[in-house]
Amino acid sequence: MRLLITGAGGFVGRALIAALAGGHDIVAIDRDCSAIRAGTVRRIEGDFADSRLIAQAVEGGVDAVVHLATMPGGAAEQDPAEAFRVNVTGSAALLDAITAGGRTPRMIFASSIAVFGDPMPEKVDDETPLRPRMVYGAHKAMIEQWIATLGRRGAIRGLSLRLPGIVARPRGPSGMKSAFLSDVFHAARHGEPFVSPVSPQATMWLMSVPCLVRNLIHALEAPMPGEPFALTLPAVVTTMDALVREIAAQTGWNAALVRHAPDAALEAAFGRQPPLEARAAHVAGFASDGSLPDLVGSALNVIRQETA
Amino acid sequence: MRLLITGAGGFVGRALIAALAGGHDIVAIDRDCSAIRAGTVRRIEGDFADSRLIAQAVEGGVDAVVHLATMPGGAAEQDPAEAFRVNVTGSAALLDAITAGGRTPRMIFASSIAVFGDPMPEKVDDETPLRPRMVYGAHKAMIEQWIATLGRRGAIRGLSLRLPGIVARPRGPSGMKSAFLSDVFHAARHGEPFVSPVSPQATMWLMSVPCLVRNLIHALEAPMPGEPFALTLPAVVTTMDALVREIAAQTGWNAALVRHAPDAALEAAFGRQPPLEARAAHVAGFASDGSLPDLVGSALNVIRQETA
Repeated sequence: MRLLITGAGGFVGRALIAALAGGHDIVAIDRDCSAIRAGTVRRIEGDFADSRLIAQAVEGGVDAVVHLATMPGGAAEQDPAEAFRVNVTGSAALLDAITAGGRTPRMIFASSIAVFGDPMPEKVDDETPLRPRMVYGAHKAMIEQWIATLGRRGAIRGLSLRLPGIVARPRGPSGMKSAFLSDVFHAARHGEPFVSPVSPQATMWLMSVPCLVRNLIHALEAPMPGEPFALTLPAVVTTMDALVREIAAQTGWNAALVRHAPDAALEAAFGRQPPLEARAAHVAGFASDGSLPDLVGSALNVIRQETA
Repeated sequence: MRLLITGAGGFVGRALIAALAGGHDIVAIDRDCSAIRAGTVRRIEGDFADSRLIAQAVEGGVDAVVHLATMPGGAAEQDPAEAFRVNVTGSAALLDAITAGGRTPRMIFASSIAVFGDPMPEKVDDETPLRPRMVYGAHKAMIEQWIATLGRRGAIRGLSLRLPGIVARPRGPSGMKSAFLSDVFHAARHGEPFVSPVSPQATMWLMSVPCLVRNLIHALEAPMPGEPFALTLPAVVTTMDALVREIAAQTGWNAALVRHAPDAALEAAFGRQPPLEARAAHVAGFASDGSLPDLVGSALNVIRQETA
């Protein structure tokens, strides 16, 4: 299978490439491909929203696309016009390019639970309407709509997966407002103090990188679920306090090193995630990490491998 | 009130301008403004999706926008990329321009019942999910999403109105697949034969131009309804057969001049419109023509005035 991965140089893209391990003919595109091991994949460095670059990437056709590239939440709020160019116009141009010549590739789109709004509704299930408030969430919802339409028309075999908070991303600036969810793992790993920008009672939806990679591979291999061409992925629903204590238990970190200094905006956006019922995704064979200990163990493993 | 109308040279735009009759400071933009009487409004000729032109149109700020300009259904199917540029990128650029400088104008967006899909679901009410199949309907749904997000953020006072079939548009090419719904009125007016591309049993949702104009003015003046920032307008639900007979009764046209030669695609797209329950729109003060005789009388009046 010829597989195009956008945003392939990011932490999810790299983990996906490692997991696929040469089983596919992979074209990787990202502004920075330096962290992708050469030889295993064809690397194209640049902006996926650049139509000439995409034309080059899909030359000869692709069988499937995992579309991870995005301008994330915090960055999109800072520059909505550039975010529109990348997240909306760029994604639409990508869809144009991969369907040129009448091909009907599989398209797995990394959407986000930001489509549900900020604050989120009282519960989320498969009937919950999309009411994004962040620029990022609106752009994801718009491309979900376009992917569903193309799926309905038979132009692609399309599926949008709404991702919860993915842990643990590498340290360093990400443009993601939710970076603190990963930073707490890094602090624990290094025995450092940590200031949580959400309260101990903050509730959030989490998934480990390995679990997400399993779900992406499942999306590439399983029968496509069809209408409504978008699924909210299952997640482990936890509180910040429970997360901190589980990380401490698994690492020997002193949880007393954690101080909570809630930021009202972050608490509203990431700390009030409601009960989640991801039935359609379960039926289609997608899964969460299963439990908080499994999630934490899996996320800590990612960090250990990265720093090994 | 300083009011910007896009697509102002079209039949709805012209009727809206006539109804507002000098009560507002109107800026009209369209590729062809020749049918708009000079003197009453400031006319800007060109493509609303041209960002320089829009910058010129909104210079000094606008209090409200009625966004009618669009690449319609049939034309959008022929050239989806150009349709995306006009309907999505262009509309987003318009929204950028009117909110520049922190203004929060009222934005009335002419959306379409094409957002519900083709074929339509078994019934449509305020909970019906948007599942467009036509390019045009998908683009409308995407901009509805963006307008709702901007409304939620307080960047605009936004409202998308989903329009049913509007009768009677002038004769001539429109790019609209639904043009036959108007052509039947013109045929009757001129005592000509008419070939219906849908069956006698075809059901559809209709609204007269004067009724739509009343609804647009209501949208400009009434309190904004807020979530979900989009309303399906009430409509007269009728069959093609009942429509033909009512037109014949009001004009003296011989209904035997009508022959039905159903086109499967048009029948699916426009002839299977289900029961409609537009409760939210009713609550917000929007209305249909009320009855089929009222609708037909109103549409025939429009034609008589145009040809007078």
